[in-house]
Amino acid sequence: MKRFPTEYLKNLGRRLFLACGASEHEAGIVSNELVENSLMGVDTHGVILFSQYIYEVLDGIIRPGAQMKIIKETPNTMVVDCGFNFGLVSAYHMVEMVMHKAKAAQIACIVSQRTHHVGRLAAHVQKLAQNGLIGLGYVTACTQYASPGLVAPWGGREARLGTNPLAYAVPTSTEPVVFDMSTAMIPQGRVRSYIRKGEPLPDKGYIQDAEGKPTTDPNDLYGPPRGSILPFGYKQGHKGFGLALMTEILAGVLAGEAVSKEDVRDHYSNQLCLIALNPEAFCGTKVFLRLMEDLSEYITSTPPAPSFQEVIMPGTLEYKTREKRLIDGIPIDDEGWKNIKRAALKVGVRIGEQS
Amino acid sequence: MKRFPTEYLKNLGRRLFLACGASEHEAGIVSNELVENSLMGVDTHGVILFSQYIYEVLDGIIRPGAQMKIIKETPNTMVVDCGFNFGLVSAYHMVEMVMHKAKAAQIACIVSQRTHHVGRLAAHVQKLAQNGLIGLGYVTACTQYASPGLVAPWGGREARLGTNPLAYAVPTSTEPVVFDMSTAMIPQGRVRSYIRKGEPLPDKGYIQDAEGKPTTDPNDLYGPPRGSILPFGYKQGHKGFGLALMTEILAGVLAGEAVSKEDVRDHYSNQLCLIALNPEAFCGTKVFLRLMEDLSEYITSTPPAPSFQEVIMPGTLEYKTREKRLIDGIPIDDEGWKNIKRAALKVGVRIGEQS
Repeated sequence: MKRFPTEYLKNLGRRLFLACGASEHEAGIVSNELVENSLMGVDTHGVILFSQYIYEVLDGIIRPGAQMKIIKETPNTMVVDCGFNFGLVSAYHMVEMVMHKAKAAQIACIVSQRTHHVGRLAAHVQKLAQNGLIGLGYVTACTQYASPGLVAPWGGREARLGTNPLAYAVPTSTEPVVFDMSTAMIPQGRVRSYIRKGEPLPDKGYIQDAEGKPTTDPNDLYGPPRGSILPFGYKQGHKGFGLALMTEILAGVLAGEAVSKEDVRDHYSNQLCLIALNPEAFCGTKVFLRLMEDLSEYITSTPPAPSFQEVIMPGTLEYKTREKRLIDGIPIDDEGWKNIKRAALKVGVRIGEQS
Repeated sequence: MKRFPTEYLKNLGRRLFLACGASEHEAGIVSNELVENSLMGVDTHGVILFSQYIYEVLDGIIRPGAQMKIIKETPNTMVVDCGFNFGLVSAYHMVEMVMHKAKAAQIACIVSQRTHHVGRLAAHVQKLAQNGLIGLGYVTACTQYASPGLVAPWGGREARLGTNPLAYAVPTSTEPVVFDMSTAMIPQGRVRSYIRKGEPLPDKGYIQDAEGKPTTDPNDLYGPPRGSILPFGYKQGHKGFGLALMTEILAGVLAGEAVSKEDVRDHYSNQLCLIALNPEAFCGTKVFLRLMEDLSEYITSTPPAPSFQEVIMPGTLEYKTREKRLIDGIPIDDEGWKNIKRAALKVGVRIGEQS
């Protein structure tokens, strides 16, 4: 495991994505977003994706330079076709667009078609909040056209849905409140890590086998025959299912026929829905920020339960990690770093040991 | 337990609320909404509230005839002061208002101040969906000014939040998809029913005592010292907490200083936030309804897991109950019926045994 300074990684990412055929602007966005995710401690959506994205460009899954097309627009709404550019580039522009609309017209919603991996959902609503807006976000990676999905509906024994995350962020007078959650019990990546470690899952609430029987054996997710991840909520999994379905509808259905069968075959596809609300139109920004301060104080002053140190607002941990990593550097494990170097060579970028 | 025909109860409710000083229009709305909730099987929010609402009017907690005031308005947003009229009257008008705005301007949001109990949250978003809109709804019963609440934040050992439900409804070519959930592990009413039955809670995931220790003794919620309900999610209660906080912010903070300390002392106070989206502005209503049909078919065709009969869309059970109760009548237990008759006498309405 090595640690790298933020600026070094931002610059490296920029060079890598430029070498992939991205414009200066696009390469800057993708690199910046991934490094920011790493800074916030969300390593699964951070710089380790440098290599994955490079290979996806080389395989034609990501199309640098693809122009975003506006399919439909009103003063408050927008449907865009992202053309499978980097999902982070698409999401970046969607944030800008929905922000402009919400600033001008109080509330706005944007949904996307043909969008590559948008990464950390919270990052996008966080930007809305940094600009004084309440942001709500929904992502689905699974449409009715796509692969069968990973997550079973409540009471079902076959996967039908994605892990469909939802997120929100809210402006405060300091750092925004930032929250995101998967509507499933566990991300696929974590099931895989139990398989790698040869360990069972912590309990029977996470996945079920192909028969619909709860199991702690992570291999049962892949079978064959394939099992499925359970919707979030243990005994109250109907709630997680309901939330997954809401996400599927807002991010998946509202955009229309967002991907063709060929798109699904040839590309990794996310669909993003962002809703932005301007507090100025409601109680006014000044009052809103004061009340958020009161609420934050009220929540964080709760005496902690045994085995907790403190009660925190969502996002606090990530901001603390960011502060620390800005100083200490961003950790990348040896395998991740080797992968980055290997992918870099593919696009003709040479990385010295500590260049 | 007796069963009563829908029309009989609607008429009875109308007479009761008229006798309380409500206008014909208001009495009709309140009665109708409560009977509809009973029809859908949500008895806790149904006709058993006839008696409670009567007493609340007599105690000055509900103010029939109070005019709704518009505090702030844009083409897409509205803040209203409901003046502690029946919450169902307030919610009814809020649905109308946000619907008009969303039909004209694609997306709209309304938030309320000084609102009495809005009852079954799903009922309000359901109406938006019946009118072709996607409805999102959030309710809080606990503001920073209010009583300490019922639900602990994640990691805390004191209550700070309400059971903060959220809901959505989505139009389809038949009945809307309708979903609502509490962001807490269990409603207060259900804890009370365990106390009445002298039974322990099913497991330690629901409540904690005043020390923050999980307990199955329902009495620990009230103490003294008072315990608290846990946020929804068992081991992943941070998710339920995040959702509760989102609800608190959208329904509680966005409306500004929605209640004074005196309001909280003198009234029961809900705050409602409704967001309506018009699918016509996105993929178009026709495509949207077709894709909802596909999605519904895709989900409900999932083979059921052991111990499940079928996979259903949210709301299906409630609509089935409605069909059945329209024929069989609405059940009211003896105590509930006695309460209604007793309350009726207070406002001079005589109810015959089967009048």
